[in-house]
Amino acid sequence: MKHFTFFLVAVATIAGLAALIAPASGRADGQPSPIFLSEIPQGYRDWKWISSAHEAGNLNSLGAVLGNDVAFKAFREGKLPYPDGTIIVALHYRNVPSAENNKVFGQAQSFVPGPPTNIQFMVKDSNKYAATGGWGFGHFADGKPGDAAFMKTCFPCHEKAKASDLVFTHYAP
Amino acid sequence: MKHFTFFLVAVATIAGLAALIAPASGRADGQPSPIFLSEIPQGYRDWKWISSAHEAGNLNSLGAVLGNDVAFKAFREGKLPYPDGTIIVALHYRNVPSAENNKVFGQAQSFVPGPPTNIQFMVKDSNKYAATGGWGFGHFADGKPGDAAFMKTCFPCHEKAKASDLVFTHYAP
Repeated sequence: MKHFTFFLVAVATIAGLAALIAPASGRADGQPSPIFLSEIPQGYRDWKWISSAHEAGNLNSLGAVLGNDVAFKAFREGKLPYPDGTIIVALHYRNVPSAENNKVFGQAQSFVPGPPTNIQFMVKDSNKYAATGGWGFGHFADGKPGDAAFMKTCFPCHEKAKASDLVFTHYAP
Repeated sequence: MKHFTFFLVAVATIAGLAALIAPASGRADGQPSPIFLSEIPQGYRDWKWISSAHEAGNLNSLGAVLGNDVAFKAFREGKLPYPDGTIIVALHYRNVPSAENNKVFGQAQSFVPGPPTNIQFMVKDSNKYAATGGWGFGHFADGKPGDAAFMKTCFPCHEKAKASDLVFTHYAP
């Protein structure tokens, strides 16, 4: 028991120090926080499935939206606005016909995710991202973040989904 | 500590009794196991995302394939054949245009899961389902299993995907 208590105290102390060191908002150099993510959140491929989506036209995309535990709980319970700590990821792939499925079906009807195109994130932190409705946006293609000009287009578009806290995706039951 | 040990012993005893009572294969009445599931596996909506799929034509379906932990690990590692304990679920929904997304995009391009149509399962148990390649198939619409005639069509079709152990779905990275 003694060891376990010590471990808890040590963890709490380290967490406390980290909180003291990290700036409450904005960057350590006094510049405002960027409104977009520069790094891919870890572990996203293990998150739970919120819904799938297909975009026809030029995007020609097929993919899925996953959420971390905070996100998944909020989606399932229909909780709005999304709580701080929510992270949503949209995994996009080229929408391609499946030759092997179509062979079995005997007709061209089956479409599956082809090569990955990009990964997009929404991170809820009402303090850090106050200027963009509490959401930080991320876009990564080949592991590289979208440039500033591109990233500035996220918020004005998502702002149109005010009724669902700037999130387009609905939970598929 | 004493209480905890007692709890563990109690759990182990109950589990042991359950194992003794359950028939090793087949049914208690001596009839062969049905090749299809009569009950929906619990907790499937919390499983991890393997891939999405869109079927055009008469099916007009949009959905996702999820897997339990055994399934997800095998898919991610490309392990074949799938180990016993693998459970895969395909969640199917009507493929419907999203009026609210299209309004934002300014064109009709966005498709999302509409009303659920059915849920299909594949359960790997090489002993219980030896007659159908080690897989038990399940199909549920409105919570009710597909009838015997319908369920007999699963295996002959999936058998065509022998190279991937009867599974059509590939892991989306």
